[in-house]
Amino acid sequence: MRNGMILTAILLSCVPAAARAGTDWQALPDVAPAPADNPTTAAKVELGKMLYFDQRLSSTGSVSCFSCHNVIEGGDDHMATSAGVHGQKGGRNAPTVWNAAFHSVQFWDGRAPSLEEQAKGPPVNPIEMGMADLGAVTGRIRAIPGYRPYFVTAFGEGDVVTMENTARAIAAYERTLITPGSAYDRYVKGDEAAMDATQVRGMETFAATGCTACHQGPAFNGPALPGGTGFFVKFPTHAASPYVAEYALTDDAGRYAATKDEADRGMWRVPTLRNLAYTAPYMHNGSVKSLPAAVRVMASTQLDRTLTDQETADIVAFLGALDGPFPEQTLPRLPPTPGDLLN
Amino acid sequence: MRNGMILTAILLSCVPAAARAGTDWQALPDVAPAPADNPTTAAKVELGKMLYFDQRLSSTGSVSCFSCHNVIEGGDDHMATSAGVHGQKGGRNAPTVWNAAFHSVQFWDGRAPSLEEQAKGPPVNPIEMGMADLGAVTGRIRAIPGYRPYFVTAFGEGDVVTMENTARAIAAYERTLITPGSAYDRYVKGDEAAMDATQVRGMETFAATGCTACHQGPAFNGPALPGGTGFFVKFPTHAASPYVAEYALTDDAGRYAATKDEADRGMWRVPTLRNLAYTAPYMHNGSVKSLPAAVRVMASTQLDRTLTDQETADIVAFLGALDGPFPEQTLPRLPPTPGDLLN
Repeated sequence: MRNGMILTAILLSCVPAAARAGTDWQALPDVAPAPADNPTTAAKVELGKMLYFDQRLSSTGSVSCFSCHNVIEGGDDHMATSAGVHGQKGGRNAPTVWNAAFHSVQFWDGRAPSLEEQAKGPPVNPIEMGMADLGAVTGRIRAIPGYRPYFVTAFGEGDVVTMENTARAIAAYERTLITPGSAYDRYVKGDEAAMDATQVRGMETFAATGCTACHQGPAFNGPALPGGTGFFVKFPTHAASPYVAEYALTDDAGRYAATKDEADRGMWRVPTLRNLAYTAPYMHNGSVKSLPAAVRVMASTQLDRTLTDQETADIVAFLGALDGPFPEQTLPRLPPTPGDLLN
Repeated sequence: MRNGMILTAILLSCVPAAARAGTDWQALPDVAPAPADNPTTAAKVELGKMLYFDQRLSSTGSVSCFSCHNVIEGGDDHMATSAGVHGQKGGRNAPTVWNAAFHSVQFWDGRAPSLEEQAKGPPVNPIEMGMADLGAVTGRIRAIPGYRPYFVTAFGEGDVVTMENTARAIAAYERTLITPGSAYDRYVKGDEAAMDATQVRGMETFAATGCTACHQGPAFNGPALPGGTGFFVKFPTHAASPYVAEYALTDDAGRYAATKDEADRGMWRVPTLRNLAYTAPYMHNGSVKSLPAAVRVMASTQLDRTLTDQETADIVAFLGALDGPFPEQTLPRLPPTPGDLLN
C-alpha cells in the first residue's frame, strides 16, 4: 500500500494552487462500486441487513453492527469511542457506515482492504462484539436454522453458511448505505438553487483554504484509488498547532499501530465529510465536540491556517450541503433463536 | 388491584371443566385499545418510534428500548435476562413488546398500570438505561433540538417536550406492535385451512389440559380487564413439581418484590403466548430453553399434569399457529446529536 503514501505527498505539494484554480467537484454516484467477486444482489442485501442488525453475532448477544453504526442517524453512535460487550469502551471514534462503500480501505488506519474484510473485524474484537474467533461467529449463525434459506438464496446450495459469505452479505448491504442526492450533489449537477449563497461561498472558501487537498472526490475522502489502496495523510501535520495538545491528537499513533512501520506513525485514512451534522463528536478520538471547532482544528493542524469566524461559518454551511438524503429502509425480520443459543 | 387476585381464584376453581366444555376462542383485534387520554395518532406513533430506537435516552448512549425489545424478532432480546448499561444484567427475562398493548398491566409483576407508566421505568433503572432520573431523560431529549418539531406536531405548541409526552408517544408506537392475522386468528374467524390437523388437535389438548384457565382471551394472557387491573396467578402453584427446583422458579418472589404484600408472594402476571417461537428462553428467569420444555413445566407446576410426548408436541404445534405476522416497519430517522451530549 506504499503507493497510497506517495500519492499523498504529491497531492500535498501541489495544493492549494490547483484547488483554487478549478476544483473538480464531483457528485456521489447513485450506485456504490462492488468488487468483481461480490456483485451486489438483492438477496445478499436482504441477508446482509439481517446479519447487520443481529445482536446474536456478539458473545453476549447484546451488540450488533447496528449498535455502533446506527443507520437511523449518522451511521455511528454519538459517542467519542464506542461501547462494546460488557460496556467496554474502544479506543477510536466509530467511523460512519454511510458511504463507507466509497472508501478504498476501511477503519481509521485503513487496515482492511475492503468492506468484506472489515466486516470480519468487530465480531472478534474482544472489546467490540467479543466472539472467540470467526468460527464461533459462523457457529452462532449455523445454530439459528432460519438463516440457512437466506444464505442459499444469496449464494446457492452447499456449504454456504460461512464467514466469507457472511462478510460478503454484510458488505453488500453496506453498499446500499449511500447518500447521493444531497444539496451539494444537485448543485454540482446543475441545480444552482440547491445550495444557498452562504453554502456557495463556503464551498469556495473550502477549496481556497486547501481542504480539497485531502477532502476531494465524490465522498470528500481523497482521490479515486483501487480497492485496497489507501489514501493516508499525516495528522496532525503542523505539530505546533495549539490544538494538538488540547485534543490529544498524537496520543494515538494511527496506522503505525497496525503496521509497526515508523513511516506510518501519525498517518490516518482521510474520512468522508458527508453527513457530518450527524456524526459528532469528531476526530479519531472523538475529542472535538462541534463542527465549527472541527473545521478550525483541521485548518490549523493540516494547513497551518487560522480561519476567521466568517470563513468557519461559511465552511460549516457548505458541509451542511453534504448531508443526506438517507434512503428509507424497512426493518429486517430475523429468524427465531433456539433457547440455548446464548445462555 | 385486589380484584385481579379474586378473579384469579374464581377462574382457577372453575377449570378445567368449563374450558373443556366450550372454550371461547378469540381472535386478536386489528387495533389495540388506547386510553382516553392518549388516543393513538400517526404523529405520536412516528415520534414514539424515534424515541423507542434512540440510544441517547440511556446514560451511556448505548441502550435503547429497542436494545432489549427488538421488534426485528421476538420483541425481546434472546437472553435469559437482559444486558443494560455497562453490561449489567437484570434479574428477569425481558417480556416481549409484541402485543404488550393487550396486557392490562405491564412488567412481569404488573407494577405499571399502563404502557405509558411502563415506559418511564427502564430509562431510570440503574441496571437498564441508567439515567439519574426522569428529569435527566427529558433534559437529554431537549438537548437534541431536532426533536421539538416532532413533539409539537404530536402534542401541540407550548411546553410539550416532557416525560409525560415522551411516555405517551412511546406507548402509542407500542400499540402498533401487534400481530393479528396469525394462522390461529384466521382459523377462529372461519378459515378452517389456516391450521393443520396437528395444530387443531393441539388446540383441543391445550384447552382440555386446562391451559385456558389462565391463557385465555385474544392474547392468551387472561380475561378482559380494565387497564390497570392485573390478572395475576401464583407460579408455581404445585410446589411439589420437580421443575420448581430444577429451574429455580421460586427464587424470585414475583409481585411481592414490588408490593411487599405477603399475598403477592409468588404471584405473576400471566404473559401472552403469542410469538413464542421468537421469545426463547422462557419463564420470568429465562431458565427454560425450549418451548416443549416450557409446556411441560407449565403443565406440571400449574396443573399438576404430566403431558405425554404427543400432547406436548401437539400443544407446541398449536402455539406455532399464534406466531406473527409481524407488520413491516420502516426505520426511523433520528435528529442529529450535539457533539457534547454524551461525553
